[in-house]
Amino acid sequence: MASRTPSAPIPSAPSPAARPHRGTDKGAAPGKGTDGRGTDGRGTPGKGTGRAADQGAEKQRRRLSVDERREQLIAVALELFSRRPPEEVSIDDIAAAAGASRPLVYHYFPGKQALYEESLRRAGRELAGRFEEPAEGPLSERLYRVMGRYLDFVQSHGPGFAALLRGGSVAASAGTSAVIDEVRQAAADQILAHLAVPVPSPGLRLTVRAWIANAEITSLEWLAERSVPLEELQLHLVQEFVAALTLTAAREPALAAELAGFFAGERPDGPTGLLVRDLAGLFAVPGIADSLAALAAGPTAD
Amino acid sequence: MASRTPSAPIPSAPSPAARPHRGTDKGAAPGKGTDGRGTDGRGTPGKGTGRAADQGAEKQRRRLSVDERREQLIAVALELFSRRPPEEVSIDDIAAAAGASRPLVYHYFPGKQALYEESLRRAGRELAGRFEEPAEGPLSERLYRVMGRYLDFVQSHGPGFAALLRGGSVAASAGTSAVIDEVRQAAADQILAHLAVPVPSPGLRLTVRAWIANAEITSLEWLAERSVPLEELQLHLVQEFVAALTLTAAREPALAAELAGFFAGERPDGPTGLLVRDLAGLFAVPGIADSLAALAAGPTAD
Repeated sequence: MASRTPSAPIPSAPSPAARPHRGTDKGAAPGKGTDGRGTDGRGTPGKGTGRAADQGAEKQRRRLSVDERREQLIAVALELFSRRPPEEVSIDDIAAAAGASRPLVYHYFPGKQALYEESLRRAGRELAGRFEEPAEGPLSERLYRVMGRYLDFVQSHGPGFAALLRGGSVAASAGTSAVIDEVRQAAADQILAHLAVPVPSPGLRLTVRAWIANAEITSLEWLAERSVPLEELQLHLVQEFVAALTLTAAREPALAAELAGFFAGERPDGPTGLLVRDLAGLFAVPGIADSLAALAAGPTAD
Repeated sequence: MASRTPSAPIPSAPSPAARPHRGTDKGAAPGKGTDGRGTDGRGTPGKGTGRAADQGAEKQRRRLSVDERREQLIAVALELFSRRPPEEVSIDDIAAAAGASRPLVYHYFPGKQALYEESLRRAGRELAGRFEEPAEGPLSERLYRVMGRYLDFVQSHGPGFAALLRGGSVAASAGTSAVIDEVRQAAADQILAHLAVPVPSPGLRLTVRAWIANAEITSLEWLAERSVPLEELQLHLVQEFVAALTLTAAREPALAAELAGFFAGERPDGPTGLLVRDLAGLFAVPGIADSLAALAAGPTAD
């Protein structure tokens, strides 16, 4: 089951350069080999200016077109903002890493906040792209693959991801908040689409939103402590979703049929199968089994 | 089992005045009957200046002592910040509501941000106080009572609570973020103390933190839509905690004994009993029962 990567057209762009660093290189002069050029390679169209040179861009080192330069600055900024909280990244850092002058950066962006928000939008779009998953196979295994890609993102954008979500970041604004909300919305939409419930109830929507919050907080905690292997987190988050879905169905009888369909599609060696057997084992522990039986029997007339 | 402080004297102060309003009274001139005086009535000591007048304070209307005036401004600010997002509250609003002049407010606080953070600290302390619960009776019922008090707080401080937690608030800062973290920590500490697990595992801590995030997001969503009665939320959040705890025990065998103790203390007509019967009913649905049995049987050799 479930190997983390491909399975779909997932852009894997800005991450690689971010990996080797651990956020301690604050004062170091960047901008040598890590200029992050070529940016996200997605060739984002729609700018209208017809950014021609996509192949052979390696040659014209400093002579970038307007659009290319803009893209390069965003990519460099994203890389820096991934490694450090926004207050620890200056326009000078970005200029140096881009091999550009400070005035040039200001020529493209009114200030750090604008550059931060734009790079965040890119990161948000990339993350949302990772949620895309073909509607094939058991649901828990689809979610497992998505969570693998999500956790890869978290890992490679660690400090920036943490600063952003921890709130109270000095760079937080209506703009950054909108990006976060959009990514959460994209995640919720994907999940609901895979569940294929025609009209999701408010309770089901809430379950999905709460589970997304759970995934966020869990990955933030993981970033801070890294106390368990990432693969465990990936499995647990999926199993927690299955449990949350089951709980919602327990209180919304209309969902029982959907849940039956869900379980029918699951495999014994997938996340749900493993969960069912773990729980069965737990419920068979004598003390627990007795208590559960008493609770299931209901209140006695006394 | 740690009951932190008294467990009883939960200040219920700033809320009542906030209740009748729905955030639409933006431009209205406050400060008539709602001046919020008497503030939080907790008589916070420790300032050293010996704030004497606590009884009969009703008389000296405008002649408040330095400490009293400070407390009054904080209480008025908290009331306004509870009703509206911080960017919609001005120093002038606070001065008007306190029956004070603008310079007088600035005499006590360098600016709106300082007043916001101080009132937030008070609110945080009040909220943390609501988590205190005697270590008596079934655990799920203790949590149920705490959630009732928490949700009351959410309801009475709605817009301010939402603005604060939604992130991206213009007033977000390291200071506000620290307050939020402290309240979350207080909640986690209380839960772990009630669980009485000698040394909570990282997995259990994470479960508690994730469930707290779930409670936050669920109450935020509820504030926005109010699509279910508050009592349902109260019950569901408790049941979700029970489920999360069970799931954690399923993957951490060391917790099984704790879970046995937990279930043994529960009552059939409490939140856990209701949950167990709802789930038993769901698992008895033919399609679901068959699928679960197949998953429980494990992978077949093929």
